[in-house]
Amino acid sequence: MKKAIQDLYPDSLAHCYGCGRNNPAGHQLKTYLDGEQTIANFLPGEQYTALPGSVYGGLVASLLDCHGTGSAAAFVCQAESIPMTEAPIPVRCVTASLTVDFKAPVPMGKELTLTGKLISIEGRKIRVAMELSAGDALCATGEILAIRLREA
Amino acid sequence: MKKAIQDLYPDSLAHCYGCGRNNPAGHQLKTYLDGEQTIANFLPGEQYTALPGSVYGGLVASLLDCHGTGSAAAFVCQAESIPMTEAPIPVRCVTASLTVDFKAPVPMGKELTLTGKLISIEGRKIRVAMELSAGDALCATGEILAIRLREA
Repeated sequence: MKKAIQDLYPDSLAHCYGCGRNNPAGHQLKTYLDGEQTIANFLPGEQYTALPGSVYGGLVASLLDCHGTGSAAAFVCQAESIPMTEAPIPVRCVTASLTVDFKAPVPMGKELTLTGKLISIEGRKIRVAMELSAGDALCATGEILAIRLREA
Repeated sequence: MKKAIQDLYPDSLAHCYGCGRNNPAGHQLKTYLDGEQTIANFLPGEQYTALPGSVYGGLVASLLDCHGTGSAAAFVCQAESIPMTEAPIPVRCVTASLTVDFKAPVPMGKELTLTGKLISIEGRKIRVAMELSAGDALCATGEILAIRLREA
């Protein structure tokens, strides 16, 4: 069974509120590599309201941030033929910059799908383009510049 | 006593997880106009970890998002001489795009200060530049393009 990239991070670097398996209070987002892209799914709880009926932008940004760093790590593993089978992998990325463009209100009560595509890897800098959709509706796009940590 | 802009939003538009006074589960961020800038303070709970000892980027993005829309509303009120004394004000903004640049790890356990400065108001489009600091340390900068809702 394919593993989520966040389940392969070293234990000491797996406490992120958004995606760390070692943070029981957090969202525990899971990003999977699927061919040339990454994918994650998430169903927001009702408390994450913006205007009534829609999901607040902060959660959208949070999901894109964690999916972005996870995607960056996955694409590095793919590029360097690092097996994504068992923790710990020697790759962990953090965010240098994140841009989110909100295209449509994110409906509450629907499972969201995030995808990621590699733009570039230049040394320790990885750029990933992302989309966040609810069913067929594209709700937000994002781009991340992630930095690979020197020691992971 | 000066009121936070989020405490002036119409009741029906005050449920945001990040800053809505009508969302008891949320962060309830409060943005104040102070002369030519806006300011908000926030102390993250320990669960919002990134790598151990630092605050996760998703929360940073969330705070900048809500401080950004709040700042945009406050600057519109200032520009149009709308009194910021009692709810409801006829101004509510949502995010069209948000950019966050992470400059340094955000230390856990310190109160964070967010500031905002108006870049421009063009019709319903408001641009605001922001900074997020922990004490003297600048940790992140952000820019938001906020859109004023037609009916608020």
